[in-house]
Amino acid sequence: MNVVIVGGGAGGMTAASRIRALKPEWDVKVFEATSFVSHAPCGIPYAIEFDFSSDELMYYKPEVFVKERGIDLHMNSRVVEVRKGRVVVEENGAPEEYEWDRLLIATGASPKMPDVDGRDLENIFTADLPPDADRIKKAAENAENVVVVGAGYVGIEMAEAFSAIGKKVTVIEMAQKPLPNFDPEIGEIVRKEMEKRVDLRLGEKLEAFEGKERVERVVTDKGEYEADLVIVGIGVKPNTELAEQIGAKIGETGAVEVSRRMETSVKDVYAAGDVAEVEHMITGKKVWIPLAPPGNKMGYVAGVNMTGGNMEFPGVLGTQITKFFDLQIGKTGLTEREAQNEGFNVKSAFITANTKVHYYPGATKTFIKAVKDIETNRILGAQIAGYEMVSMRTNAFAIAIQAHLTTRDLFFSDLVYAPPFTPIWDPVTVAARVLKF
Amino acid sequence: MNVVIVGGGAGGMTAASRIRALKPEWDVKVFEATSFVSHAPCGIPYAIEFDFSSDELMYYKPEVFVKERGIDLHMNSRVVEVRKGRVVVEENGAPEEYEWDRLLIATGASPKMPDVDGRDLENIFTADLPPDADRIKKAAENAENVVVVGAGYVGIEMAEAFSAIGKKVTVIEMAQKPLPNFDPEIGEIVRKEMEKRVDLRLGEKLEAFEGKERVERVVTDKGEYEADLVIVGIGVKPNTELAEQIGAKIGETGAVEVSRRMETSVKDVYAAGDVAEVEHMITGKKVWIPLAPPGNKMGYVAGVNMTGGNMEFPGVLGTQITKFFDLQIGKTGLTEREAQNEGFNVKSAFITANTKVHYYPGATKTFIKAVKDIETNRILGAQIAGYEMVSMRTNAFAIAIQAHLTTRDLFFSDLVYAPPFTPIWDPVTVAARVLKF
Repeated sequence: MNVVIVGGGAGGMTAASRIRALKPEWDVKVFEATSFVSHAPCGIPYAIEFDFSSDELMYYKPEVFVKERGIDLHMNSRVVEVRKGRVVVEENGAPEEYEWDRLLIATGASPKMPDVDGRDLENIFTADLPPDADRIKKAAENAENVVVVGAGYVGIEMAEAFSAIGKKVTVIEMAQKPLPNFDPEIGEIVRKEMEKRVDLRLGEKLEAFEGKERVERVVTDKGEYEADLVIVGIGVKPNTELAEQIGAKIGETGAVEVSRRMETSVKDVYAAGDVAEVEHMITGKKVWIPLAPPGNKMGYVAGVNMTGGNMEFPGVLGTQITKFFDLQIGKTGLTEREAQNEGFNVKSAFITANTKVHYYPGATKTFIKAVKDIETNRILGAQIAGYEMVSMRTNAFAIAIQAHLTTRDLFFSDLVYAPPFTPIWDPVTVAARVLKF
Repeated sequence: MNVVIVGGGAGGMTAASRIRALKPEWDVKVFEATSFVSHAPCGIPYAIEFDFSSDELMYYKPEVFVKERGIDLHMNSRVVEVRKGRVVVEENGAPEEYEWDRLLIATGASPKMPDVDGRDLENIFTADLPPDADRIKKAAENAENVVVVGAGYVGIEMAEAFSAIGKKVTVIEMAQKPLPNFDPEIGEIVRKEMEKRVDLRLGEKLEAFEGKERVERVVTDKGEYEADLVIVGIGVKPNTELAEQIGAKIGETGAVEVSRRMETSVKDVYAAGDVAEVEHMITGKKVWIPLAPPGNKMGYVAGVNMTGGNMEFPGVLGTQITKFFDLQIGKTGLTEREAQNEGFNVKSAFITANTKVHYYPGATKTFIKAVKDIETNRILGAQIAGYEMVSMRTNAFAIAIQAHLTTRDLFFSDLVYAPPFTPIWDPVTVAARVLKF
């Protein structure tokens, strides 16, 4: 059997590896448009902050896939056409055709660019592929003023990176709080932390980039900001062109619709990773929340099913974490606003707690916003901010939500306790109690 | 209604607070034998390591309970007799009688002392009540050689404390590994870490303490060790005397048998905290695992039910965490050995993983031993050692086990990921995959 995988990112390479492990005799070709595989944009801010090369952003080097896993990996090979049983690939400047019995579309997502004047000026960047890290670092060498457009994940991580290396950073966000996909209580905590380090401009709409060749200024509806370098982090869109070409159905979210087995609407054509929709574990609805761990698992599931196995991807909760210097911010499940929009009758709790027993040195504050469904007492979501253990508590909520635990179940969860780690009543337990049961 | 609570530790005070909150008109008396309330022994090692006073070990001061919560708190009041409807209390050197309609026995547990010669010599201590911390600190002033008997939690925390303040520490443990309630793979990691800092004597049996007035030597079946100060941490036993006096049934574990509502076998008599048994969430059997968070929750449940409410305590997983300097060690559910003893047909996995993405500074190794039931694929237990995020992964397993998740469910858990926090495939997910599904 001939398998063709379009895209050598995390999802594509996980699928390729899985297929080769299960069917060592099958021919598995991966076509990757860049000279990088197994990459993810999440490391780009840290390549800037800690000054390492873009090569480091690959989780595995190409040799691992070729030599150890026997994958026929074609780098710098862009698939330009997908037809029934065939793909056309631009390799070494010439088109080549390859046959497939099973096809996986793992073309990922790309950053959006705002439709404003001056968007093509030099030194305006998005964070997408590993080489972006090198280009941004080079441009940063002579930059004094950095403007970051968007205060979502990418925005705040980039703001940290440039602030950490000594740049003067302005962050422009249209919403009234940073991390606009969080509830405002948490956004407010992030705002205070960001304002210690950067010039945070909330409720401002980008209108134009100005400059001669290079960007020199960012113009909003409220002001103008000097800029030697601009990072745009206003969201991403799925790369669905090839999926559309072969006739795969595009879902309401704009990403490729797939079954839980990662099948598209076209026979023998699968999609996985950031290009595809998934089910939300709470609502059962299709969502598009492109993040690395589900993307990898979707590739794993696609690989199993493409070889004749039967595995279902149960969906996502949109679990996320980021940080701005010492402040960590995590989220899983639905925010209060999202839960209301989904029609739930919700009760929410917002608590402030210490991270350790009072007598143990180094305790800090942590903040939890948690949401339950009043009818069933089921936990619907949690957002956590604080200076330590945010990942611990976000994961505790994530598994509780996945398992349909109620506030009472969570109150009685048997969580770790010792003075160096937590208070006796873990804040997760306290949040469950405040939510009532 | 008159409520009498025997014991002002965590369980007793939680119950008292709950009852006053639910029934502000009820009379709630708490008799506490010491001059401390709301205390727990878990802070004693840290009072030594960080040199703070035993007063700090109280979670709330007595005034909080008396003034804010309206509890009739009697300190330095030892209950010497419990009869139907009455207790006799030694207060101010004289016996007093009090009536009760509902009684809660929250007498806790006390450290065991080995039955060997010299056990009454000076400078031999256990870690039990807050004043022990002061006595130990005083004795430590002139001590050079400290011997710790037992390498369970108390032993390794005390070994850290004395080593941190510059003492020469010898730890004597009968078993072949420290933390003998862990599987040996994890015990081995702890052994290596402890041997960097202390003289760890495994497989040695304590035979005697020797000295004139003060302890001078600890004698085992394999050697003799100089000792100016000895800490004994070989386990605890429940303080069941008063429960037995009133005729409450003692369970097979040796602790007071209670229903899920915290009722003893005697009408209107409840027990909670370290003196009582609980159900194990996996096996459904009665166990005695005295730890602070379940002890508090048992008090909470007892308080609700004593006022006519109806709440069940669902049981425990024995979730625990400790550390020896930088090495953190956590456990939840059953070890491989325990699961086998319970009759499960088990598969286990032992993995070593990095705590962060390869390119993010400061990644360390973490070790997970996880156990599943082959028949159902249900996760039965996990033990984790490492230098960070051990509490996060132990809690993830704890909630997964509580919710009866299978290895497949856990593989698909939507856990946090960002480069500063975790690798893309969280070690929890990797362990689930290695356990197969």
